[in-house]
Amino acid sequence: MQYPAPIAKLINSFTKLPGIGAKTAARLAFYILEMPEAEVLEFAQNLINAKRDLTYCSICGNITDQDPCAICSDDTRDKEIILVVEDTRDVMAMERLQEYRGYYHVLGGVLSPMEGTGPDDLSIAPLIKRLSDEEVKEVIIATNATSEGEATAVYLSRLIKPSGIKVTRLAHGLSVGSDIEYADEMTLFRAIEGRREL
Amino acid sequence: MQYPAPIAKLINSFTKLPGIGAKTAARLAFYILEMPEAEVLEFAQNLINAKRDLTYCSICGNITDQDPCAICSDDTRDKEIILVVEDTRDVMAMERLQEYRGYYHVLGGVLSPMEGTGPDDLSIAPLIKRLSDEEVKEVIIATNATSEGEATAVYLSRLIKPSGIKVTRLAHGLSVGSDIEYADEMTLFRAIEGRREL
Repeated sequence: MQYPAPIAKLINSFTKLPGIGAKTAARLAFYILEMPEAEVLEFAQNLINAKRDLTYCSICGNITDQDPCAICSDDTRDKEIILVVEDTRDVMAMERLQEYRGYYHVLGGVLSPMEGTGPDDLSIAPLIKRLSDEEVKEVIIATNATSEGEATAVYLSRLIKPSGIKVTRLAHGLSVGSDIEYADEMTLFRAIEGRREL
Repeated sequence: MQYPAPIAKLINSFTKLPGIGAKTAARLAFYILEMPEAEVLEFAQNLINAKRDLTYCSICGNITDQDPCAICSDDTRDKEIILVVEDTRDVMAMERLQEYRGYYHVLGGVLSPMEGTGPDDLSIAPLIKRLSDEEVKEVIIATNATSEGEATAVYLSRLIKPSGIKVTRLAHGLSVGSDIEYADEMTLFRAIEGRREL
């Protein structure tokens, strides 16, 4: 005997999500059965709405429910700076800081020969077009501190620098509050390399 | 700036699931955006169907899409044995073994004074009624090997024994393939207590 079809199908849907194995999927599916019907219907509706109502901003590539997105539509921001990130979550992380006041550009990933992601798979051509159309003076490359993120940063830097626009990269070093003792070698190396005079 | 409303709502729905925090919920929600629309619609439909089409078997309390459930409707099983479990997943685990051929009774939980779960919150009265109506000769109590599961087993045993029906409990001891060195004290104690002559 197997699970009744409706629950087997729900478990199957959950296992398609990243990081959710068969056991967790079964636990989640049974939890759904115990939830109030209104909440389950809302969950289903939220899935559909998220998929149907969200789109990518035609300027920066950020996920948005209006085009251009709220940030690109905001005229009060600093037009001279574009911060380049891998995906929308990075935009949200920067925005939570409430420190950065320029615009963004979302690449939609990083260069990864291993996964077959080349420059044409990322939003690089639209970025170059923005740089020639807009009055940008600095591009801050904020790809992740992974090897792919680094390689993408170097690639973009070589592509942009000839146009005379300043290209910068977020600083690497020790996390605030972290112990040197536990820092990995690469982080420590970068922390020494990027040391500042006090 | 916050996430656009459709994604914020979807993240919120995911955080209502057990064991899913804010970060995992965001990761899952963004993954949904990348999924093919047909799969997302299917996921939503599976949520609704699981909630709408599943019910509890009026005899054993198992989750089912037909009433009585497939097991209770199966006349070829052994009518003299009822195996009592905490929830539907335990039924599935037993059925996967393809070893047990009696019927089941799903309690829907365990006695837990801490969580305010008393005998009236579990399917105990229906079990007692089944025992008086049906030709049952043995009740196997297969609640989990936790303190609540044990207490529930003792409670049921005291309730059923006066009727003359045999009450048994699944054996406790070392997991097959496990090291004595790593067994916890209670398990080792139970393994000694339940030792068998070779």
